[in-house]
This record gives sequence, C-alpha cells and structure tokens, in this order.
Amino acid sequence: MARADPIDADGLARLRLIRTTSVGPATYRQLLLRFGSPLAAIKAIPDLARRGGGRTPFVPSLADAEREADRVAALGARYLFNGRDPYPALLSEADDAPPALIAAGDLSLLDRPMVAMVGARNASAAAVRFARQLAYDLALLGHVIVSGLARGIDTAAHQGALATGTIGVVAGGIDIFYPPENEALQRDMMMRGLVLSEQPPGTEPHARHFPSRNRIIAGLAQGTVVVEAAPRSGSLITARLAADYGRDVMAVPGSPLDPRAQGCNHLIREGATLVQSAADVAEALGPFGANHVAAPSVDFDVAASNDVGDRDRRDIVALLGPSPVAVDELVRQSGISPAAVHAILLELELAGRLARHAGARVSLDA
Amino acid sequence: MARADPIDADGLARLRLIRTTSVGPATYRQLLLRFGSPLAAIKAIPDLARRGGGRTPFVPSLADAEREADRVAALGARYLFNGRDPYPALLSEADDAPPALIAAGDLSLLDRPMVAMVGARNASAAAVRFARQLAYDLALLGHVIVSGLARGIDTAAHQGALATGTIGVVAGGIDIFYPPENEALQRDMMMRGLVLSEQPPGTEPHARHFPSRNRIIAGLAQGTVVVEAAPRSGSLITARLAADYGRDVMAVPGSPLDPRAQGCNHLIREGATLVQSAADVAEALGPFGANHVAAPSVDFDVAASNDVGDRDRRDIVALLGPSPVAVDELVRQSGISPAAVHAILLELELAGRLARHAGARVSLDA
Repeated sequence: MARADPIDADGLARLRLIRTTSVGPATYRQLLLRFGSPLAAIKAIPDLARRGGGRTPFVPSLADAEREADRVAALGARYLFNGRDPYPALLSEADDAPPALIAAGDLSLLDRPMVAMVGARNASAAAVRFARQLAYDLALLGHVIVSGLARGIDTAAHQGALATGTIGVVAGGIDIFYPPENEALQRDMMMRGLVLSEQPPGTEPHARHFPSRNRIIAGLAQGTVVVEAAPRSGSLITARLAADYGRDVMAVPGSPLDPRAQGCNHLIREGATLVQSAADVAEALGPFGANHVAAPSVDFDVAASNDVGDRDRRDIVALLGPSPVAVDELVRQSGISPAAVHAILLELELAGRLARHAGARVSLDA
Repeated sequence: MARADPIDADGLARLRLIRTTSVGPATYRQLLLRFGSPLAAIKAIPDLARRGGGRTPFVPSLADAEREADRVAALGARYLFNGRDPYPALLSEADDAPPALIAAGDLSLLDRPMVAMVGARNASAAAVRFARQLAYDLALLGHVIVSGLARGIDTAAHQGALATGTIGVVAGGIDIFYPPENEALQRDMMMRGLVLSEQPPGTEPHARHFPSRNRIIAGLAQGTVVVEAAPRSGSLITARLAADYGRDVMAVPGSPLDPRAQGCNHLIREGATLVQSAADVAEALGPFGANHVAAPSVDFDVAASNDVGDRDRRDIVALLGPSPVAVDELVRQSGISPAAVHAILLELELAGRLARHAGARVSLDA
C-alpha cells in the first residue's frame, strides 16, 4: 500500500480544532468563520469557554495531531478537509458535513455520481439477493454505491458494486472492522473501493457514532435507496437525513404482511419514490449532475463575544434546559440578536455545557 | 323471495331502447337527449339507420321487454334506470353509466359509501387472507365493498364484508353463476348483499362483458383498491377506469420479486396511493361524501339529421377506418360542426357500421 500524501501545517491545525472536546461540525464551522483560521480559533477557545462558564476544553497539541496523522498515513489513508480539495462535492453542501474525513482507497470514486443503498441488518435472503443485483445494475449504469459496511443490505450493496465502484462509510475508526465478519470486505474496499471515517483511527464504534455515520452516507449521495427497513430503524434515519438534504429518497416496497417491509412502505406513503429496478432508480435521479441541489443552508451570524453582555448570557442560560429547543425560538423569546445568541451558544458549547441536536435545536447539559 | 316492484310503461320503453341492437350507453343517452323519450327515439331509429347506410337494427317489441321484465321479477330482481330513482349516485356521474341495471338484494346498500376491491383471480393465499381482512375492516368502518364475484381477491373481498355490506357486479346475467363455485356466494349476496348486472337474465359472460363489468365496479365506488394484480390484468383496467372517473386509486404493494405485485407496484409508481390497512384506505378516501366529484362529462350536441348534408356523411365515412380515431379529431379534420358529426356517428352506429371505444374514439366496422 502506497504511503498517502503527507498532511500540511493547515491540515494539522484543522485537525487540532476538529479533535477539540465539544467542537462538532457546527462549532468548527462557526469558529473558522469567526476567527478566520484554525490557529486563531484555537487561541480564542480558553476565553470563550470561560465566558460560557465552564472549564477550558481539551485542545490537542500539534504533537497529538501529528501522531494521529502518522497513524493515518501508516494505514495508507489520508485526510479530506471540508473546504479543500479533494472533498466530496455533495457532502460539502450539508450544514453538518464532517470538517475532516479519513479516506482509504480510490479517491477518483468521489468524482462519480453516487447513490446510497441502506437497509436492514437482518434482511431476508431474498432482499439480500435483490440488493446485490440492484447495486450491480446501478454500478453498470455508472453509479458509485455508498453504504455503511453493516450486515445484511449494506454488505450486499457493497458486494454487488465491488468491481465497479463502492464507498463504505464506517461508524468507528477506519482501521476498526465492525462487524468483524466484514473485515475482508472492508480491507478489499480500502484497495478497490473507498472507505471513509469521521473518527480517529482506533475509535471503537458506539451507539452515538451510527447516526453521525448515516448523515455522511445520506450527504454523499444524490439519492438514497432503502431496501428493507423496520419502523424506527437506522435506515429510516438515513432516509430522513437524505430528504432533509434535499436528496431523492427511494424505497423498495414489500407485502404489508412482511414486517420488514413496513419501513419502506411507510416511506413510499410519505412520498418516497417506489423503485423496483436500477432503471427506476436512474429515472428518479435524473441525468447525472442534474440533482446537485444545495441543501437549505443555515447561516451562522458572526459576532464577537465582546458584543455580548452578561445579562444576555444569563437570559439565554435561563431559557435553556435539558429538552432541546430551537435556536430560532431562543432568539424570539430572548429578544437578543441572532448573532449574539449564536455567540453565546458557541461559548456554552466550548464550555461543555451545551448539546446540539438535529433541526438546529440545542439543550443544556446537566 | 318477495316479488320485486313491477316495471312501469316508461321502464318498458327504456328497456326496448336499451336492448336495441347497436345501442350502447352513449347512443342511448344521445337518442334520449335528441328525441326526448324512449318511444320517440324508437320511432326515429329506422330513418336514422337508413341515413347511416345500413339495415334497421332489431328493436325489441313491447312483448319482448315484458318477457324480460317478467323473468327479472321472477328472479326477485328489479331494474334500476339511470336518471330515475333508485340508481347508484356516483355511477350516474360516469359518461358511460349503464342505462339500466338489474339488481337483486338489499338496495339500501346503494345509499352507503362504497369502495371497490379488485385483484388477481390466482392470488396468493396470503393476499386472499389479507383481502378478506381488509374488506372486513373497511366494512366495520361503514364502507360497502364492491367487487366482481370472480375467483381470488374478489371472492375474499365479498366474504370479508358479507355480514356488513357488499355489492357484486357480474359480467353475465344476474342468474348466471360464474365461476360456478361462487354460486352459493352469489345466491347469499342476492339476499344479504346486492348483486348487479347490466345484461339480460340468461346472458353467458363473454370476454367483451368483463371490461363493461369493470367500469361499473369503478363507477360505483368512491375509490378502488387493487390487492394483487399482474401487469395488463383486468384489475388494472378497473383501476384505470376509476382514475378516468376521477376516483381514488389505491394499491397494496408487494416485493419486486413477486410477479403478482408488479401491477400494484406499477400503479403506485404512477401515483396510486399505497395502502396497507383499512385506516390507510379510509384516510385516502377522506370523509364520507367528500369525494363525490363529478367525472369530466362529454357533452353531446343535439342536432337533427335534417341539418346534415350527404356530403358531410360521405366525408366522415371517408375519414373513418378500422383503427379507432378520436371524435374530436374527426371534427377537426372534417371541418363539420361537432353537432353534425355526432349526428352522423349516431346514424352509423344504429346502422351497425360504427364501433365506439374508450376515450371517445370510434372506428368503422368492416
């Protein structure tokens, strides 16, 4: 395996900011907007956290970042930074796009149109066969198949498109094989396909990593096909995220008597396109590139903490609680400017006191 | 079985016109509009047919009509005439509504909201069970279930709703049991439910009767649910007719791997509502009575044959051939007024030289 491109100074600085405690994609983006560079943001963090009323978050040192980068390089992998080339174009349009991905494999796949296929881990044998064939047929039409390297439908989708182009997004580190029986497939895809991870190498996947992984799958692809999915399953979350990003959601129907078809049938009732074949999927996606619709983007106002008074901070904290509340609602109820509210939330987040939720909602950590 | 209401003089005259050779629903309606009464229309027929260049069609005598009416009464059945009470309200909104139906059973069912259920004769055992349950559940919600007394899904739909209300529309005469194994069900429905037929008693069902029967099923109901249907099956024709009438079309999905699901899945792709339960059907239909949407109605212009010149007749005949052509197209190409074109077509039809097709298209019989 060829050693990948070495990381540069800007990359190392970005990595330090990305791996800082409490810094998620939204905070990272806001900090870069506000301070202009990762190093300037890192320098400002202690003061911001103090204003937020908490302890200074852990900011990795340059040596820490170099250590991770060396490990990534040793794995034959490299970083993709949002805002720098190469980075998946459609994914960068998502508000919560990962600031950095670790990638191993054939980066040229990122330049081709992608379609995601997701579904049940305990899929029926018939659905597994169907998914493999559908992936194969879609790959022949020129689509790269994106999935999550999980059991069942994910595995079948990757297998069907292995020879022509498939991307796997893992929930843990790129060197972690989960489920273990997919180690050979993942290793194969790190050569012939492409494997992506948002987490540092060595990260064991935990429950919270899976929804994060699902958003990357949905964000990479022009559209998401759900093959078999139980109600309230992760596949439906991926479908929902794809819809939120303005991408096509497609589902393969099944008998109402088959519990594993409930999720897909429900999606179709909600407006997903019923698909039975690669031709149906291709028809839904339209001509390549035609669907590069930017997702509705949340604009962060940029404000200096200096503009924010202590009374405003207290008011916002008083409005926050353990139940997530919309940032818009905070602005309305507090009467404080959106820029100032965002600045206060940023401080609270860096102080480890704020959690961010889907739909631009936030809650106060106990 | 109580002897049904006797037929009156107007009914007998209508029956004579209805049973006249070459007089279909469209011609019947046009003749009544033009001549004001069935007897006046009957009187005009020989002259119209002569102008159309053919032999005078067979017009049953009053005695012939009385003979049929006696037979209907002896079966405990009665006539329902379009334009007179009782007649199914939604059906009367269809352009090609039968001028007369023969009905045996509980006429009060006609006053309740109806939903049609159709599907494959060779349905899977699972689909048959599903259809029976769906009909039962819909009946509990107050819907009368309309179907065609065929094998498979039709039979299951009637059985599920037998105790609460079901209407069967047969393709042949009301006293003909087809398929033979459904004789007991049909006899039961002639007491507890309602059986309708457009054909005189004793008529054996032929291929051409089935699409006619299907239009009655679609026309009676607020919406049509297709449970299992092969591509190009009669159930899909019923669904198409329901859509043409502006009624709701619903379909139960299935796996793409199941050939019997292809028709339903295709319908859903085309815009039919995916339904998995009685609640889904009820939701699609909306509140009772809310869906009494009149179908787009074709207005026949009323013109006397006297207004039509012989050259116009020759021009229209020259434009006609064995392939169906739209009446609108004839008007456009001939430059003759719509009223005159309709009058000429009426003559040709009565002369046995014209066939009418779906979509207001006509062809010349060889």
